Amino acid sequence: MAVIALASPPARSGATDPRQVILIIGDGMDEQQITIARNYLKGARGRLLLDSMPLRAAAQILTVEEGSGGRPVYVADSANTASSLATGKVTSRGRISTSAERDEDLTTLVELAAAAGLRSGIVTTASVTDATPAAFATHINFRLCENPDDMVNVSYQDILLGDCSADLKANGGRGSIAEQLAESPLQVILGGGAKHFAPTAEGTSQSVAALARQKGFSIVRSAEELAASQPPKRLLGLFSASTMPVRLQGEDGRTAQAPKPSPLNRVHRYLGHVTQPAPMTCEANPAFATVPSLKQMTDAALAHLAADNARGFFLMVESASIDKQAHERRPCGSIGEVEQLEEALASALEFAQTHSNTLILVTADHSQAAQLTPEISLFAAFPIPQYSPGLIARIITPEGALMAVNYATTNFSRAEHTGAAVPLFSNAQGQDRVPAFVQQPDIFHIMRDYLGL
Amino acid sequence: MAVIALASPPARSGATDPRQVILIIGDGMDEQQITIARNYLKGARGRLLLDSMPLRAAAQILTVEEGSGGRPVYVADSANTASSLATGKVTSRGRISTSAERDEDLTTLVELAAAAGLRSGIVTTASVTDATPAAFATHINFRLCENPDDMVNVSYQDILLGDCSADLKANGGRGSIAEQLAESPLQVILGGGAKHFAPTAEGTSQSVAALARQKGFSIVRSAEELAASQPPKRLLGLFSASTMPVRLQGEDGRTAQAPKPSPLNRVHRYLGHVTQPAPMTCEANPAFATVPSLKQMTDAALAHLAADNARGFFLMVESASIDKQAHERRPCGSIGEVEQLEEALASALEFAQTHSNTLILVTADHSQAAQLTPEISLFAAFPIPQYSPGLIARIITPEGALMAVNYATTNFSRAEHTGAAVPLFSNAQGQDRVPAFVQQPDIFHIMRDYLGL
Repeated sequence: MAVIALASPPARSGATDPRQVILIIGDGMDEQQITIARNYLKGARGRLLLDSMPLRAAAQILTVEEGSGGRPVYVADSANTASSLATGKVTSRGRISTSAERDEDLTTLVELAAAAGLRSGIVTTASVTDATPAAFATHINFRLCENPDDMVNVSYQDILLGDCSADLKANGGRGSIAEQLAESPLQVILGGGAKHFAPTAEGTSQSVAALARQKGFSIVRSAEELAASQPPKRLLGLFSASTMPVRLQGEDGRTAQAPKPSPLNRVHRYLGHVTQPAPMTCEANPAFATVPSLKQMTDAALAHLAADNARGFFLMVESASIDKQAHERRPCGSIGEVEQLEEALASALEFAQTHSNTLILVTADHSQAAQLTPEISLFAAFPIPQYSPGLIARIITPEGALMAVNYATTNFSRAEHTGAAVPLFSNAQGQDRVPAFVQQPDIFHIMRDYLGL
Repeated sequence: MAVIALASPPARSGATDPRQVILIIGDGMDEQQITIARNYLKGARGRLLLDSMPLRAAAQILTVEEGSGGRPVYVADSANTASSLATGKVTSRGRISTSAERDEDLTTLVELAAAAGLRSGIVTTASVTDATPAAFATHINFRLCENPDDMVNVSYQDILLGDCSADLKANGGRGSIAEQLAESPLQVILGGGAKHFAPTAEGTSQSVAALARQKGFSIVRSAEELAASQPPKRLLGLFSASTMPVRLQGEDGRTAQAPKPSPLNRVHRYLGHVTQPAPMTCEANPAFATVPSLKQMTDAALAHLAADNARGFFLMVESASIDKQAHERRPCGSIGEVEQLEEALASALEFAQTHSNTLILVTADHSQAAQLTPEISLFAAFPIPQYSPGLIARIITPEGALMAVNYATTNFSRAEHTGAAVPLFSNAQGQDRVPAFVQQPDIFHIMRDYLGL
């Protein structure tokens, strides 16, 4: 939690028009998730807006093991990957823009931008204090230290998960993630997580929300208040208590389920039969109507960042629940959140039409558990009960076929991430800047160089 | 099995130097497989030769359901995907360059090349009669009709898998895949599958191998004979009875294994403990030393195709057992076959240095089951036995970390394919020819256009 002084930024390069970077992160949006979403939203022969991006690359994820002297870990979490994107450094799982081993604060793109007079914003469908947005503007050793009440012995049902005592202000630290956001240079913070701004800020008698207001933020709590807010403002939007409701859900709220082998099949795998989960459609989640969409938040963020701004900005937009719904084995949920990302991308592309110096990057932070598996086995000719050992959903797609989505990384109640490299898309501004293969921290350098920071 | 007359080819476009296309297929080589191989072969921070390719795209796989009027199937097999690459058409699983429903022969790139005076070759580590190579030069309704003895009621342990009676020569058809290869215009055919050339060719008293010799092929059966063969020859190389031995295997031949929960854990998932499979290294497979490598075959194919050739050629090179080893849940095997693909790619790139009009494409035909999962769970803080419901291998990488590879698509003895879009790499000749997103049949059109066919 040691604080490093920011190096003075290099003089901004020749460009006279303001430059912008819009980084759109699909949390857990790997090639399986994209294909599943394409098949459902556009049909197997259809094309996503993502597919129209002129440049496509792969990004190798890098993670190190804490206390190992740098030994690699092959599967990441959203904390260390967002830290790589935000700082260009490799760190260990659970960390928010702090270094492995030495726990030093790693300078973020938002801090570099602020020092150079550029605005920044973060937009997410998660809590704004969640790992991905947090890594762009805060520093802490453990991602779940999201508010002043969750700094010491952070537990879940008496299970100790982590501790951020060293980052308490009383100990010379920067405080919780919510407090650091309230005191950050961010122009725009939009998403969920209102509950993390309700506790009393450490060493004060006011809530973290009041602290944010004192630091210059206007606070909005509904789509209507968001729409009514006249740019440019410093805006803190908190639209739900924690993660925002997702757009789609399985029919009657169904998730992936376990195939049910008959008793005889449990005696020998060649015997008996298996009952697969019934096919299901995806349906609208009623709770989604109560919050602004990712597109509405993105549009608002762009307005507040661009108004009266001769210096440019950095905006991070996260569709967070592609991942969160995959952890819960809810394929319809993930599909709807890819659709939300597509709409946010449409807003970014529209913005770039009138602001030509805008680099748009779209990527995932890590891969996820969901696999598109055969609805009819490749080995269906063999008269043996065949089924996933995990949980599976059979989705009826709008084009009238059945799509099987399998979650079988673990027996635990939450699916695991996976380790595959992730896609990285760019608009034409990425030409000669985004090579076909990068390591995830390279993305930070591409953005920093584009902004001349 | 109706035979369509070849349209007369369009006049070749302006280029005067011969043009070549080298299509390298990593069977089942999706982003998970590539990342697993990168981590093992080069380290998490290392780079594969694939990663140096200047262009990278994604290819959406398309498959239709037989007898459905074109309804999509979301997970493919190697027969229909190779047919898409070879013909530009979408068909159903199991088919070799024949159309779904109507069973018409679909004109292949090899046939177009031959009609225009260009040579072609196929190189594979599978049987040369296996689905991927077969689709480039033969037409049949069912992939397992590989030789004259496997044309009627093709079965495995009394289980009927398919039938190609309509393609018997006696019924006006073209015969088995091996016979069609022997009578094809191919210049070079190298790989495994000698056993499919031993049976008697239909309506003759000679073996399929003898038929091939009669049609002008020289037959070689060892690396030494391959090396001694003076180009340009029409060459049929058959280096093993069926699939060629792979380069790497798990320690002591081990595959992925099931975690073993304790009896108490079977009572309730919160109780007891689990024993994970012991970590293992990868080791050389002794049998590999008995056959030429994919690189040796590729080098020979390039020599025989390029010698005294003013017209150019098409070469398909397949590293087949990335997929076959994944079906058997052998991660070390798949890793070694990605390494073989890398070496073949190095040969292709070297060839292109002295033959500038060479388009090199590398792609996979479909995605596979293997997932790189966390060796230490993201939820390790929870004191509950956590484990894969499938089979898992824990590989000790040369950089000294543990990499977990999970196979959990099915309880069947062979893992399933998955449906994610696959990577498509190109050398600089692909600039302005290979967009960032294609549908798999588009790859045929890119190759055909490049060759001016």
